[in-house]
Amino acid sequence: MQPNIPVSNHKRIVIIGAGFAGLNIAEGLSDKNLQVVLIDKNNYHQFPPLFYQVATAGLEPSSISFPLRKVFQRITNVHIRIATVQNINTPANEIITDIGIIKYDFLVIATGTDTNFFGNKDIEKHAIPMKSVSEALFLRNKILTNFENALSCSNEEERQGLLNIVVAGGGPTGVEISGTLADMKRTVLPKDFPELNFSEMNIYLMEGSPKVLGSMSEQSATKGKEYLEKLGVKVRLNTRVKDYDGQYVTLDNDEKIRTNTLVWASGVKGNVLEGINPSVIIKGRFKVDNYNKIDGYSNIYAVGDVAAMSAEKFPNGHPQLAQVALQQGKLLAKNIQALINGKELKPFKYKDLGSMATIGRNLAVVDLPFIKFQGFFAWLTWMFVHLFSILGVKNKLFTFLNWVWNYFTYDQYLRLIIKPKNPPTSNQ
Amino acid sequence: MQPNIPVSNHKRIVIIGAGFAGLNIAEGLSDKNLQVVLIDKNNYHQFPPLFYQVATAGLEPSSISFPLRKVFQRITNVHIRIATVQNINTPANEIITDIGIIKYDFLVIATGTDTNFFGNKDIEKHAIPMKSVSEALFLRNKILTNFENALSCSNEEERQGLLNIVVAGGGPTGVEISGTLADMKRTVLPKDFPELNFSEMNIYLMEGSPKVLGSMSEQSATKGKEYLEKLGVKVRLNTRVKDYDGQYVTLDNDEKIRTNTLVWASGVKGNVLEGINPSVIIKGRFKVDNYNKIDGYSNIYAVGDVAAMSAEKFPNGHPQLAQVALQQGKLLAKNIQALINGKELKPFKYKDLGSMATIGRNLAVVDLPFIKFQGFFAWLTWMFVHLFSILGVKNKLFTFLNWVWNYFTYDQYLRLIIKPKNPPTSNQ
Repeated sequence: MQPNIPVSNHKRIVIIGAGFAGLNIAEGLSDKNLQVVLIDKNNYHQFPPLFYQVATAGLEPSSISFPLRKVFQRITNVHIRIATVQNINTPANEIITDIGIIKYDFLVIATGTDTNFFGNKDIEKHAIPMKSVSEALFLRNKILTNFENALSCSNEEERQGLLNIVVAGGGPTGVEISGTLADMKRTVLPKDFPELNFSEMNIYLMEGSPKVLGSMSEQSATKGKEYLEKLGVKVRLNTRVKDYDGQYVTLDNDEKIRTNTLVWASGVKGNVLEGINPSVIIKGRFKVDNYNKIDGYSNIYAVGDVAAMSAEKFPNGHPQLAQVALQQGKLLAKNIQALINGKELKPFKYKDLGSMATIGRNLAVVDLPFIKFQGFFAWLTWMFVHLFSILGVKNKLFTFLNWVWNYFTYDQYLRLIIKPKNPPTSNQ
Repeated sequence: MQPNIPVSNHKRIVIIGAGFAGLNIAEGLSDKNLQVVLIDKNNYHQFPPLFYQVATAGLEPSSISFPLRKVFQRITNVHIRIATVQNINTPANEIITDIGIIKYDFLVIATGTDTNFFGNKDIEKHAIPMKSVSEALFLRNKILTNFENALSCSNEEERQGLLNIVVAGGGPTGVEISGTLADMKRTVLPKDFPELNFSEMNIYLMEGSPKVLGSMSEQSATKGKEYLEKLGVKVRLNTRVKDYDGQYVTLDNDEKIRTNTLVWASGVKGNVLEGINPSVIIKGRFKVDNYNKIDGYSNIYAVGDVAAMSAEKFPNGHPQLAQVALQQGKLLAKNIQALINGKELKPFKYKDLGSMATIGRNLAVVDLPFIKFQGFFAWLTWMFVHLFSILGVKNKLFTFLNWVWNYFTYDQYLRLIIKPKNPPTSNQ
């Protein structure tokens, strides 16, 4: 196989990863006198803030995924390749991928993060992470299958394991998924499974620190916990999941909880690539200067979650948030053009637009730079902001319609265990 | 595991299969003094007439799948179990399933059909069937992946294999899928893949008989073929696929065509179950009387595609169509009640409501009992009829919106290769 990128006499910029950062760089460099190659494992851009709604049967994967080729349909200088990067040969300015070698003049690493199991192989083997739309879909199928199996299970302890759900990590993902599951436990699940006793079902949220939503304001953290408990989530602060064998979660106080479903939303690590000098990797991120250039390289950049740019408020790098990735991506596109045209570069300065999390029906917390608020209006704000952040008019429309439908019917509609049929042996 | 069906002093009717027939029987027996157990492999009812739109990225699987538990949410006498039936112990009135033994007073077999490869193991191994929403999704992923791979393929013959698609079987499914693919070849695919040369892509439709849409009128068959050719499908009549090794399709005249994608829509066989006297199985269907009772049994029924009821116009059984299954299901529900209440039974009489097929944008053929017509108005009729046949208001709405969107944008929107993440070993 060969990547078959057309020969061009323009400078070639290769971007690895089509998340918020990578996509914005490619868009910023489109229709310019440059050749852009955008590489991703998937043929779509995904919207992580709503993975939890896919997992809880509220949205289809397609509502929050957007075909990359559609984004760049009218843009002829951007070449998309679905490929996995194996390593980088920096002296030769080459990327080695599963579809062959791709040369670059400038390289942008926008590979984001993946789940961090902190070296625990048991947890990695048995827990369900939430870092892709595929994983969210897997979690949905798993939970629905557990309930079906619970019907046929006469052993009380085993049934408890099928019904219980433990979520590790009290950040936005953990809070949102446990809150939504608690909503479902009260509304749609007893209607679907009148033969099950839902008082046997417990939803636990384990958080190692003394508060949930630790990155938000004190007010939001307190209110977030209050909402979760109102919905029936058993929130355990200062509590870590130490181990998991697929049947029992072991906490750091050695308490054991029976569950078939451990959702692991407890940490991330940067998807660093081989071939870059390891000494510039700090806590799983590439150390970059204020222009996102990796230390010690003249033409290699890292951007978004996988980059650690030291700033006054963030000596160890900015928080790994969509907003940082977006803003860095937009600026880097401009800086690369400036560099090529011999113009002055602009250093990055993060503009904190605030953060928010939804906990359940009508319940959210919002921290804006100028105001903090919680409850129904926060929930409306959350919906509005996320709706407008989703790529594409059709995805916005379908997500909105799904939300309206789910809201008025109290009914996550997509309770379907659908998997593509296992491929015949030779037919991958 | 145990099925844990509640003990009841009502008669228990067990229905295997939640397709058109099974679902209508269960609905017809709800809220009655009967206990109904509905068994299916999936937790949803699916709508086969639109599988081809899932395969061609026009609809989401969820738009044409409906959670069974939602259908029966308010109906307490219907118990749903997701299970695979292994065999039937007729002397003991028991079904043996993977979740344990289920007793019955009356048994209804509504298992439908599966793909018939006519014993060809090579074709079974390499071809893609179209008998479930999962298979349709697999086909979608396969086609999209082929195009991505074609970009990285410098060998002309190999690339031809990635682009070519051969469809075997000129019935409605084969016609609809090849017509839609031809539409996409002209519209959305060249926009997505400007680097590919779509004149290298051929869509073949192979039909063993002298006409496509053989079950429809001469007029529709002729017009159907004309439309397909207008769209660019290479229709080969009197031509069968003899073999397929995953790379080359071999036709019955020994011609070989290179393709990575053979869609097999060439035949079906009834999903007959073990434990029923094999002498009542005729061409893969259970021989039933005019009340759908299997010959030689007093309390076992077969209904829909898996039943062969001899009738004046159909000595070897009715055509395997949704309408037959629906009508038989509705009547059987009434007849079972009549039987239990000692009332008179009514023999089945098929009411042919006509048939239709869509070939492409604005192109369809419709045979109604009183009129036959083709073209744009037939296409509108086809959409209207199918929209109203889909289960559920939300599915109707979302399908309709997808159709409107796709129509005006010339854009099958769901060009996403999404699979649930491979489960960790122990976490099935």
